Amino acid sequence: MALAEQLKPAVAAATEELRARFGDRLSTAEAVRRHHGTGEAYHPVSPPDAVVFARSTGEVSEVVGIAARHKVPVIPYGTGTGLEGHTLAVRGGITLDLSEMNEILEVSVEDLDCRVQAGVTRKQLNAHLRDTGLFFPIDPGADASLGGMAATRASGTNAVRYGTMKENVLGLTVVLADGRVIETGTRARKSSAGYDLTRLMVGSEGTLGVITEVGLRLAPVPEAMSSAVCAFPSLEAAVNTVILTIQSGIPVARIELLDKEGLSAVLDYAKLEGFEIADTLFFEFHGSTAAAAEQAEAVRAIAEEFGGSAFKWASKTEERAALWEARHNAHYAILARARPGERTLSTDVCVPISRLADCILESKADLEETGFWSPVIGHVGDGNFHMAPVANYDDPEENRRVQAWHARMVRRAIEMGGTCTGEHGVGTGKMPYLEVEHGAAVEVMRQIKRKLDPDDIMNPGKVVEP
Amino acid sequence: MALAEQLKPAVAAATEELRARFGDRLSTAEAVRRHHGTGEAYHPVSPPDAVVFARSTGEVSEVVGIAARHKVPVIPYGTGTGLEGHTLAVRGGITLDLSEMNEILEVSVEDLDCRVQAGVTRKQLNAHLRDTGLFFPIDPGADASLGGMAATRASGTNAVRYGTMKENVLGLTVVLADGRVIETGTRARKSSAGYDLTRLMVGSEGTLGVITEVGLRLAPVPEAMSSAVCAFPSLEAAVNTVILTIQSGIPVARIELLDKEGLSAVLDYAKLEGFEIADTLFFEFHGSTAAAAEQAEAVRAIAEEFGGSAFKWASKTEERAALWEARHNAHYAILARARPGERTLSTDVCVPISRLADCILESKADLEETGFWSPVIGHVGDGNFHMAPVANYDDPEENRRVQAWHARMVRRAIEMGGTCTGEHGVGTGKMPYLEVEHGAAVEVMRQIKRKLDPDDIMNPGKVVEP
Repeated sequence: MALAEQLKPAVAAATEELRARFGDRLSTAEAVRRHHGTGEAYHPVSPPDAVVFARSTGEVSEVVGIAARHKVPVIPYGTGTGLEGHTLAVRGGITLDLSEMNEILEVSVEDLDCRVQAGVTRKQLNAHLRDTGLFFPIDPGADASLGGMAATRASGTNAVRYGTMKENVLGLTVVLADGRVIETGTRARKSSAGYDLTRLMVGSEGTLGVITEVGLRLAPVPEAMSSAVCAFPSLEAAVNTVILTIQSGIPVARIELLDKEGLSAVLDYAKLEGFEIADTLFFEFHGSTAAAAEQAEAVRAIAEEFGGSAFKWASKTEERAALWEARHNAHYAILARARPGERTLSTDVCVPISRLADCILESKADLEETGFWSPVIGHVGDGNFHMAPVANYDDPEENRRVQAWHARMVRRAIEMGGTCTGEHGVGTGKMPYLEVEHGAAVEVMRQIKRKLDPDDIMNPGKVVEP
Repeated sequence: MALAEQLKPAVAAATEELRARFGDRLSTAEAVRRHHGTGEAYHPVSPPDAVVFARSTGEVSEVVGIAARHKVPVIPYGTGTGLEGHTLAVRGGITLDLSEMNEILEVSVEDLDCRVQAGVTRKQLNAHLRDTGLFFPIDPGADASLGGMAATRASGTNAVRYGTMKENVLGLTVVLADGRVIETGTRARKSSAGYDLTRLMVGSEGTLGVITEVGLRLAPVPEAMSSAVCAFPSLEAAVNTVILTIQSGIPVARIELLDKEGLSAVLDYAKLEGFEIADTLFFEFHGSTAAAAEQAEAVRAIAEEFGGSAFKWASKTEERAALWEARHNAHYAILARARPGERTLSTDVCVPISRLADCILESKADLEETGFWSPVIGHVGDGNFHMAPVANYDDPEENRRVQAWHARMVRRAIEMGGTCTGEHGVGTGKMPYLEVEHGAAVEVMRQIKRKLDPDDIMNPGKVVEP
């Protein structure tokens, strides 16, 4: 915290200036600061010195301009649902809360696209789209803001068919570290016009600029959507079913894995009954009625080969919603089983699908040997899975043991040709692994960071240290 | 050419050093230089001072290292099939020919991916994949190198279903301007681990580094592939069929438009008979037998609404191949109708699909008023179309008139929410329009260029001037 201490006088001066401009839309109240400095996961609480609630790109530019003059940190904040400490004010500074920038600016049904302010959440957008025949397919579970989802390159359960934020962001409005406002991308579906600044900003986690508006692709609501649950005799059998499904090119919309422990926690938390407690796959099929039925039959035949149970179907909207709601609350379901003082280290890796079974089984066995417990939950169609060991992270010894396991898990994934994070982002939690994964390329990331944010004020202490 | 003259002594010194290292794999022969300095389109011939034929990433790094020490231009060269002057040595310097880097390094059938050297062409890759059940779907027409396709963010006829190089490159090996070698991306299907350097390099056209290896996603060969041709009473009717098809979410693999003039040129050149000469759509349907048939029926019903003819089918591999071969040779078919001394200005724009009919019809009418002729050929499922006015570009007055039309066409597309190039890239030809499209964001591109290539040696005079 030495750096945060050094910054105090500058932060105080910036805060004064911001208060004069923003009045009671700037808060230094303890509760507000603490709320904005608390993540969903195990990272220590790190409150900012002040929180500004901005309402427009112009206001964001003013805030960043003032922060830039005083060389103090600016931390963009959407819904605070990130899992790697992205919104923690690790050096203090000004948190820029964008939740009041929640206007849906334009929807073009003809062009299957829309433009929203960064604080619009995915559920808000989908509610707005209800009668248009379109939906926004990316679904990371949490009702995250679309600016935040762009900033972390989020994905989630639908990515196997619809892609991630990388594929679905058409363009952005971004406020840079000196207050400049740029527009990236266009409404064209594809372009070869210059460097892909949209993709540079997507996944930059607020360290290169603040995303204030997002242009998004939308998808037509399929004629038929049906969900099925299938229990397997082993984790390996379930994963092998996934591998063969993907290799066969069956365009499944979602394939989610919950291991026995994960399913049990999720069902308990959601008070759902009538499911066999086993290593389980949740499927969703989208398409014309005939195409969805054909996909389901093809997957059923594969599952049967690996000893899968009969499919348990949910085709009605409410049934499907209940099933996915239960799945999405996995994070809270796991926390519900924690003892007082315990939290989770929610981590995700992603590997080539041929290595998925090995990576999951080895990581699980390793955690058991380490003396901790975690469910395995995965967007397995992409080779992406999550573990979240429950432990008392304030106990240095427990923390050390879980972190050592975590390091082994991440290195295992990278050695298998994978990545240290499939969708959560780097934040503070994955910084130690960026160099392991990218080697000399990290220096290029640092060069870009230094050029675009020479005073290191944009969400400092995340992704890369310049 | 003043700059090229100033560079001569440095280029001579670099060439001498390179000759000592590469022997007869360096050429200064007039014919070789001229070949490497000639584009496919209207741009003036601009030969490099020397051409080096590299065989490995290490050799590329050596060449760039020597060029960097002497501060002379390096121009990466694959097959020379770019259409915007990407490989022209506009300031002289060293062309780095990568065509001998044509090894397919790895194919993983299980993971549906591969890794190739940059000089491997897409046809070479697909021939290699023939018995694997997989294929590489991106098809820009020309048998381009995969390094070149990555560098220009190429796409083509299959992009509406399979995406562009942006979506299909998993990772790259890149030699930077100081000779450093980096690896970007991993083999994971998705990642949130740091800045997306892969996407920064894809589409950077050799101005930020030389791509020497490419990791690619592959797609399973569908059970059924069928192509159909449908004639329409007007261009508008054809385009409206496309719009409704896309809006209905029908997962068509290709939808190509050829207007009456384009079809006539293409059929003549390919000596194909039995087609009605009309504004025409070429469709291709991929999927299970049932799914492909269902898609075709849905599209047929839409086409009928707009007065489309009965579908003329090609389901056999050879028939389909003949049809697409004819389409792919459109560029040469147009040239075949040119008089001596005439060439084409082959340009492409991409707009939101709701504006596609307007953009095509206005651009076509404008060209007629300007007194020139061009077919309209489009990957219309993405809102992308091409025009290629035939003219004598050595005649200053003809050149001026066509360029003025070109400027109006590009501005029209940008005003409609589109882009100045959907897939050809910026090269030298689209540089005047980058600022029109991206405004203040171009300065960020320049900042990145200056940081990663401070001496402006990487394919200088393309994309952005630092």
